[in-house]
Amino acid sequence: MRILDRINGYKKIGKPFFSFEYFPPKTESGLHNLYSRLDRMAGLEPCFIDITWGAGGSTAETSLTLSKDAQTYFGLNVMMHLTCIGMSEEKLRSALDQARDSGIRDIMALRGDSPRGDRGTEPSFIESSIDLIRWIKKNYGNTFGIAVGGYPEGHPEAKSKDDCVSFLKKKVDAGADFVVTQLFFDLEEYRLFLARCAKVGITCPIIPGILPIISFDRFQKFTEFTGIKVPPAIHAALDPIRTDDEKVRNYGVELCSTMCKELLSLGAPGLHFYTLNLESSVTETLQKMDLLDDCRTRRSMPWRASKVDGRKDEDVRPIFWSNRPKSYLARTMTWDDFPNGRWGSSFSPTFGSLNDYYIFRRGHDPAVRENRLKLWGSPKSEKEVADAFANFCLGKINFLPWCEMPVQIETSRIVSDLVTLNQNGYLTINSQPQVNAAPSDSPDVGWGGPGGFIYQKAYVEFFTSKENLLALLERVKETPSISIHAISAAGDSHSTLDDQAVSAVTWGVFPGREIIQPTVVDSKSFKIWKDEAFDLWLDEWRALYAKDSESWNLISRIHGDYFLVNVVENDFVNGDIYKLFPCFKGR
Amino acid sequence: MRILDRINGYKKIGKPFFSFEYFPPKTESGLHNLYSRLDRMAGLEPCFIDITWGAGGSTAETSLTLSKDAQTYFGLNVMMHLTCIGMSEEKLRSALDQARDSGIRDIMALRGDSPRGDRGTEPSFIESSIDLIRWIKKNYGNTFGIAVGGYPEGHPEAKSKDDCVSFLKKKVDAGADFVVTQLFFDLEEYRLFLARCAKVGITCPIIPGILPIISFDRFQKFTEFTGIKVPPAIHAALDPIRTDDEKVRNYGVELCSTMCKELLSLGAPGLHFYTLNLESSVTETLQKMDLLDDCRTRRSMPWRASKVDGRKDEDVRPIFWSNRPKSYLARTMTWDDFPNGRWGSSFSPTFGSLNDYYIFRRGHDPAVRENRLKLWGSPKSEKEVADAFANFCLGKINFLPWCEMPVQIETSRIVSDLVTLNQNGYLTINSQPQVNAAPSDSPDVGWGGPGGFIYQKAYVEFFTSKENLLALLERVKETPSISIHAISAAGDSHSTLDDQAVSAVTWGVFPGREIIQPTVVDSKSFKIWKDEAFDLWLDEWRALYAKDSESWNLISRIHGDYFLVNVVENDFVNGDIYKLFPCFKGR
Repeated sequence: MRILDRINGYKKIGKPFFSFEYFPPKTESGLHNLYSRLDRMAGLEPCFIDITWGAGGSTAETSLTLSKDAQTYFGLNVMMHLTCIGMSEEKLRSALDQARDSGIRDIMALRGDSPRGDRGTEPSFIESSIDLIRWIKKNYGNTFGIAVGGYPEGHPEAKSKDDCVSFLKKKVDAGADFVVTQLFFDLEEYRLFLARCAKVGITCPIIPGILPIISFDRFQKFTEFTGIKVPPAIHAALDPIRTDDEKVRNYGVELCSTMCKELLSLGAPGLHFYTLNLESSVTETLQKMDLLDDCRTRRSMPWRASKVDGRKDEDVRPIFWSNRPKSYLARTMTWDDFPNGRWGSSFSPTFGSLNDYYIFRRGHDPAVRENRLKLWGSPKSEKEVADAFANFCLGKINFLPWCEMPVQIETSRIVSDLVTLNQNGYLTINSQPQVNAAPSDSPDVGWGGPGGFIYQKAYVEFFTSKENLLALLERVKETPSISIHAISAAGDSHSTLDDQAVSAVTWGVFPGREIIQPTVVDSKSFKIWKDEAFDLWLDEWRALYAKDSESWNLISRIHGDYFLVNVVENDFVNGDIYKLFPCFKGR
Repeated sequence: MRILDRINGYKKIGKPFFSFEYFPPKTESGLHNLYSRLDRMAGLEPCFIDITWGAGGSTAETSLTLSKDAQTYFGLNVMMHLTCIGMSEEKLRSALDQARDSGIRDIMALRGDSPRGDRGTEPSFIESSIDLIRWIKKNYGNTFGIAVGGYPEGHPEAKSKDDCVSFLKKKVDAGADFVVTQLFFDLEEYRLFLARCAKVGITCPIIPGILPIISFDRFQKFTEFTGIKVPPAIHAALDPIRTDDEKVRNYGVELCSTMCKELLSLGAPGLHFYTLNLESSVTETLQKMDLLDDCRTRRSMPWRASKVDGRKDEDVRPIFWSNRPKSYLARTMTWDDFPNGRWGSSFSPTFGSLNDYYIFRRGHDPAVRENRLKLWGSPKSEKEVADAFANFCLGKINFLPWCEMPVQIETSRIVSDLVTLNQNGYLTINSQPQVNAAPSDSPDVGWGGPGGFIYQKAYVEFFTSKENLLALLERVKETPSISIHAISAAGDSHSTLDDQAVSAVTWGVFPGREIIQPTVVDSKSFKIWKDEAFDLWLDEWRALYAKDSESWNLISRIHGDYFLVNVVENDFVNGDIYKLFPCFKGR
């Protein structure tokens, strides 16, 4: 879906949207941080995000990778910027070809500035944004929706504001879908800009661009650089607090939300935030304006869908990767089509390797390594390893090799049970509570829209010793409603289900729809997952320690001796999965 | 699946099976009656049924049609008999080709007797059953499983009993899968027969053939005709009651079940009943022996699956034909594949006409016409029409044009509500009660095997006047959990759902399986069904009356003015579909 269609969708339901702009960081560490932010901010459900383009293609590789990954792994609708100054025809084609092949469907077409410094200049194949739009349209047909920049205070190089708007009209006539404005602080300038646009007949959506003031220095630098007007009231308010970062930030959020409200009342269809790759001021502004829905109740699936072409029909995934969704996406990226409605029957999963997944694997980054040592320590006993797992459940540490994201909200229903399990040597890495006919708009377990009912079979997945496993297998014999599958790194496997069995563990029933079963447990994928899960002990955890050190040996031993076990309680009405474990005796 | 595989399946679970033999009736009326019996007896879930073959192919057409229809419409595994005496090569080929093309996978290969009377004789292409088996194997490879007849008391033409068993051994060696014996009453003869078989090395299953004594005259005629031994004890028991049909019948059932028990204790893998196309004695025998499971809890789907090749993956159907399953099968017979797992998404239903369905449409049979006039009368008012529908719900009449079978057991949960609806002008033709997590072995609503949970959204479908419909549509506005779709014969349509919507109304959740949703409500099929449903008013009901008579005009008016309406209560947890109707005011 094009961004224009999404904008029109919001218009139809009378709801303002918001969008976020990011730039490609210069360092790998900056890139890592931006990925974490994108992941979190995707949860706010922006209408789209956009990634800027360095002059002359200086950031081409990063801009393209970021755009592709944001769309693929974070389920964001991405618009990529493209500038033409200092770009050869070959560079333009290469950028657009790659964007197209990554599923990007919108381009912000800009003239751009000349590349500065030591990067050198290349002759420009195209010199103006109008020609760029025409060239894209001519060469790529309707592959891309196109956005253009608008300048409420006039472009610095324009003869007059009227001239600038006439030029904007030409860009729109050349094929632009919508306009995103340069930032501004003077609402009166914006109002006049809108009037000029109306006068020349620009009728497409105009989205105001907004910069939250985050620190006085940055604000000062930015307004000087761009030369935009700052109303005296803002100067007056900032002057007395300029040295107090906290106060400046709070004022920034206050000002930003006041401005946003006025912009919406002036008819803005949505709000475009220049995030400067930061998160909190934008989030606070949106909270203040009450624009953040409870996304859980709006999500269409319990997992976040990818926006890549061809994955749109995907509506069932194995549960095993639910705490490592990016790994799942990476490993299934080459699939031509996705299981639609059911995982089983004719479906034979062939999972790719984790090669594409480098960005998320950060074991070699010294800062990351140090942080992990702090989180997980240098355990000397299985008990100390178990403590790390228990602490993850308690929210005391926010990352384990098997869990990319902190504990999910819904887990709060079972957190104390999980802690007990971990303390007793069942090192949990995935779980879901039992849910029997919860309303589909429940804040913790809801998905799929209103009016439906949500179900979950209780699920728990853990590493444990052979001794613990054998005791469980004995107890399973007396509990026919339990399914269990255990497997060691070496492939020693014990299962109550046959190899073909596929079990739905999350499903929803909705008015006027077929049953939706987005999460399943199946033996085939479990065997693939177990290789990844066992490797993580070595690649992510053991790698922190010197070879043959005490901790290194301990993790090696766990990797070799433990079993990975998944347990499903099929009686989602009256069952209690924890009763299976001896440590819940008497429950 | 071949019958031998099914026999081995029963053996594996240590359960005796039973099978029924029928012969092709000579009259159309007899054929109609047999279809009704087959339909009911299929509910007992025999391992297979077999259809006999008239000497010289005299019943070829009927035997083939019966075999095909039993397999297709009643979900029975059919074995067709084939005799070779008096049959040309062309006739043999034609019979086997047709059987193969109808999905028949088992043939009982027999020599047969010479055709009698005025049918004339044709030179036999093959003269012995052994040659017939060899010829089938040679020409049809493994297309068919093959059964042969065994004669516990020796074939009348055999030199000795030993000779007869040696011949049987040759038939088995030629490729027979199993043996079905001729009937007998002397268990000692059967025991000796088994011993002889063992001696010559016959190791395939031997299924004893059993004839329940139904009337003294028939018994007398049959034993005289076949010349089989009747132990003196049976003569002694029958003699004093020979003129009392009821007593003979009861004795027959008693004797039959005693014999069956002994046969099983002698190691019979199953019991083959010569039904003589009758039902009750066989059913009673099986009941007495406790061999009838509650079939509901064993059925794999809520509807009876067809045994035709290619339909084995079928696991979802629209609800509309649930009271006319044969019509649904006939209209979808040309489909290359069946919706697997879901009805919606890419599925575009193209339904065939009802041409193949002639056997079930009996409007022109005078006996049928007279019976229907008795059932439905000659209504003079809409009220009198409604009474017929109410009487159907109450079980007072057992057939309506829209309902091929009497009211289903599960309907007893809602029968009084349905009667109220009919008395208030909502002429119900289909419905199901709301079911929230019933155990999958519930006797009335269970299916799919043990350990699961069954769900149903309450459903009701009816004809009603435009006035009633408009009142309902008003009330629907205040009941968001209700979906409704109404349509007139002319196509005037009112729906709360879009045309693409598909709603699961029956589903089951089972250990180690994906969600199964065998019944859906969808707009597209509803529009196809409504043509059939409205036509039935004219073809099946109005056709009983003289043109322009009072009843003829009444049915014409209902056909033209009424709407066909389906209603789904999506809240299967707390909803009450009947609250929608004004006649349940205050409920």
